Amino acid sequence: MRGVCVIGLGLIGGSILRAADRAGRATWGATTSEADAAAAEHEGVTVLEAETALQRAAAEDALVVLATPMGALRQVGRLLAWHAPEALVTDVCSVRQPATQELRSLLPGARHAGSHPMAGTAESGYAAGSAELFDGAAWAVTTEDDTDITAWRAAVELALDCGAQVVPASDAAHDAAVARVSHLSHVFAAALAATAADGGPLALSLAGGSFRDGTRVAGSDPALVTAMTEGNREALLDALDDALGRLGAARGALASTGSLKSTVESGHAARRSWHELLTSEHVRRNVSLTSPGILGRLRELGERGARVVGLDAGEATVEMPN
Amino acid sequence: MRGVCVIGLGLIGGSILRAADRAGRATWGATTSEADAAAAEHEGVTVLEAETALQRAAAEDALVVLATPMGALRQVGRLLAWHAPEALVTDVCSVRQPATQELRSLLPGARHAGSHPMAGTAESGYAAGSAELFDGAAWAVTTEDDTDITAWRAAVELALDCGAQVVPASDAAHDAAVARVSHLSHVFAAALAATAADGGPLALSLAGGSFRDGTRVAGSDPALVTAMTEGNREALLDALDDALGRLGAARGALASTGSLKSTVESGHAARRSWHELLTSEHVRRNVSLTSPGILGRLRELGERGARVVGLDAGEATVEMPN
Repeated sequence: MRGVCVIGLGLIGGSILRAADRAGRATWGATTSEADAAAAEHEGVTVLEAETALQRAAAEDALVVLATPMGALRQVGRLLAWHAPEALVTDVCSVRQPATQELRSLLPGARHAGSHPMAGTAESGYAAGSAELFDGAAWAVTTEDDTDITAWRAAVELALDCGAQVVPASDAAHDAAVARVSHLSHVFAAALAATAADGGPLALSLAGGSFRDGTRVAGSDPALVTAMTEGNREALLDALDDALGRLGAARGALASTGSLKSTVESGHAARRSWHELLTSEHVRRNVSLTSPGILGRLRELGERGARVVGLDAGEATVEMPN
Repeated sequence: MRGVCVIGLGLIGGSILRAADRAGRATWGATTSEADAAAAEHEGVTVLEAETALQRAAAEDALVVLATPMGALRQVGRLLAWHAPEALVTDVCSVRQPATQELRSLLPGARHAGSHPMAGTAESGYAAGSAELFDGAAWAVTTEDDTDITAWRAAVELALDCGAQVVPASDAAHDAAVARVSHLSHVFAAALAATAADGGPLALSLAGGSFRDGTRVAGSDPALVTAMTEGNREALLDALDDALGRLGAARGALASTGSLKSTVESGHAARRSWHELLTSEHVRRNVSLTSPGILGRLRELGERGARVVGLDAGEATVEMPN
């Protein structure tokens, strides 16, 4: 089993390291945070200087996982180019296009496939993580026609070892999708919380479950939310424009005819289609990884809701909604 | 202890009846739903014809609780005017102004104070309810200068017996507040779910906790959500316009400067102020119910986040955020 070298031991990096260890893989890491280093070492994790960690990755042909914030990617990419230029690499940035672009410009010959595990908590830091964080979660892996197949396999193996299911997607399609399901949720939660608070203490005193759930992610660290949403500007603008169109239409209908039927029913149908995608019976099929154009075919399956749930030497097992 | 006659034995009415019974009060009810009647009788509830139930309320000077949908209020109000015109009455409509108006026009001499218990579940019907539904919840009670003090006391006693805390509010202030914290949440959830679903199966496959929580209430029965939101049209339009202004400003800032800092930080601060209102230390004070203008004073305290948590012959105990 390939070793795993994690650079950045916050919530996500620390959880990946623990989940890879749980799967029986050799793991070591590096971090610039003294608190994360101390918490990881306290659990028996091998924490090295970044240079040493990367040199060991090069020597052992390990998978390097870049789990730093997006802002630190350039600095870490330079270290990587110096100490382990041929390593297999994934990163876990939540906006995929700029991350892949940055790493390709720093590491032109890199064997890289990006990752985005769709799991988290409102807390951050090593101490907030766990080996179970990704169990059953979706985990996007960059699947472009020119993605290095060895790096792709390594990223998929890591995700599966962490208990996740892999959604194969192009970086652009991923960014457009998460703008709608994640980044827009954060903007909505912020606007809803602020509009409610403008109603004063009486409104907040009357707030119940619909407010609590609708604004939950507004409780997250504003610096992290800002960096994530601003980093996906174009796709988020597109999603916001669609949402503003829907809300404007709802406003117009309520003002003119007094009806919110269309708004409420389309939202209910959408929520139901998500629930059905999650809970409907799925069919499994095996696809050969040696056939030409296989990454393109997997990407198309991903667009139809498929996930990779298994991998062996020559085949991937894919689960499709029925 | 005053008996409690509940007309309408759905989720809310059925739960009120059970909670009042738990508090040791005599209870009986009526419903047009055979399923609710059967479920209630199975638990030993006295289920009567509406006429008989109201006649018993008149004979025993019980509190009549109208827990039918808003659409049935006129019909039930007419029965009440015929069989128990002097009864103490509350209703549990989630939009207060039209409910109070309707009941006042049908029962000009009514001793009425409206209620809005801020609790619920995604399910409906007697079987979905429980005696514990209101424990710790907020429960708005109509507190106008001309609200009948005996009816007000009766509604407050019921809420406290049900385990809730009373938020004294004018019907207009209540409707403006719930437009922001509840009805807007429903419109947002619908628009978010529909915008996400427009991203296709890939987007829904990548949806995580922020989507799940932000769209939870879009899973509720569309007919109930439509009736509730449309019934509070003016206040909801006001809240929607504020929210559209905020989202438009966010869109503009993201497009021009690329920044969402102001949006994210104001949402975070708003969510935190709600959390602090709930969890901060509260001070208790007793206010005499015999002093002139007391309902106006209680209403002002409610606007500052106060709740009535106790009631005896001459005084109300009020909890204020510190």
